[in-house]
Amino acid sequence: MSEIRPLTPRECVELLATQPLGRLAFSENALPTVRPVNFFLHDGDIVVRTSRSGSIARLTKEVVAFEVDSIDPATHTGWSVVVIGKVKPVTDVTDLVALSGPRHRPWADGERSHFLRIPIDIVSGRLLRLAEPGAVTDAAAS
Amino acid sequence: MSEIRPLTPRECVELLATQPLGRLAFSENALPTVRPVNFFLHDGDIVVRTSRSGSIARLTKEVVAFEVDSIDPATHTGWSVVVIGKVKPVTDVTDLVALSGPRHRPWADGERSHFLRIPIDIVSGRLLRLAEPGAVTDAAAS
Repeated sequence: MSEIRPLTPRECVELLATQPLGRLAFSENALPTVRPVNFFLHDGDIVVRTSRSGSIARLTKEVVAFEVDSIDPATHTGWSVVVIGKVKPVTDVTDLVALSGPRHRPWADGERSHFLRIPIDIVSGRLLRLAEPGAVTDAAAS
Repeated sequence: MSEIRPLTPRECVELLATQPLGRLAFSENALPTVRPVNFFLHDGDIVVRTSRSGSIARLTKEVVAFEVDSIDPATHTGWSVVVIGKVKPVTDVTDLVALSGPRHRPWADGERSHFLRIPIDIVSGRLLRLAEPGAVTDAAAS
């Protein structure tokens, strides 16, 4: 994968808003890990809605990375945006009511009452060119 | 997103082998970050081929997380596998020749002469059920 060009912060945020799914990188038991999560933007922050019992709900003020990308296998191109921010669990009742409204109730079944905000403290992104699909097979066959 | 069930280590490795793209989480300038990367499996390790000049090439013995997933918007289900391992840049000439062979030359244009191995020291995975696509719009419209 090669980088075509960096994205501006404005482009990064516009692209973030187009996707429902990102990958959250954080530390769990002193080891790095990554989880795919649904998210939405609210008041300029990333908001992740999750279960109270999972590992993401144990984050309280850690600095995390949140990556969103879209990579098109048909055109071999895509983009990747990375947000770095210090998480803030949402505990204020007014905020919880706002985030739990119908616009933000699309989540999978099961208890999903924990909200985590990730302020967009640092954002960066890049346009990418992917490896050619099928090239492994083609090269091996030649 | 909710977890349907954990995957066995064997299932995790079998699923890893089906995808060309993963997300590498590591520290850069003391902050977490994530990069989408092409990869392949070789002798049971994850192998990432990258440029000598990028941030991934500066990894020498860090513990990283490498996440691979496949999430089908049509069925609203998917899986995610996370490998944790201590990276090993490939410097042995015999290894470099093996990894640079035609089976592993499918990469994008540009210099891509740095190989990074990530041993599968710890692997875990889960079957997932996604949020319903379009539910945000549906709920907002109702």
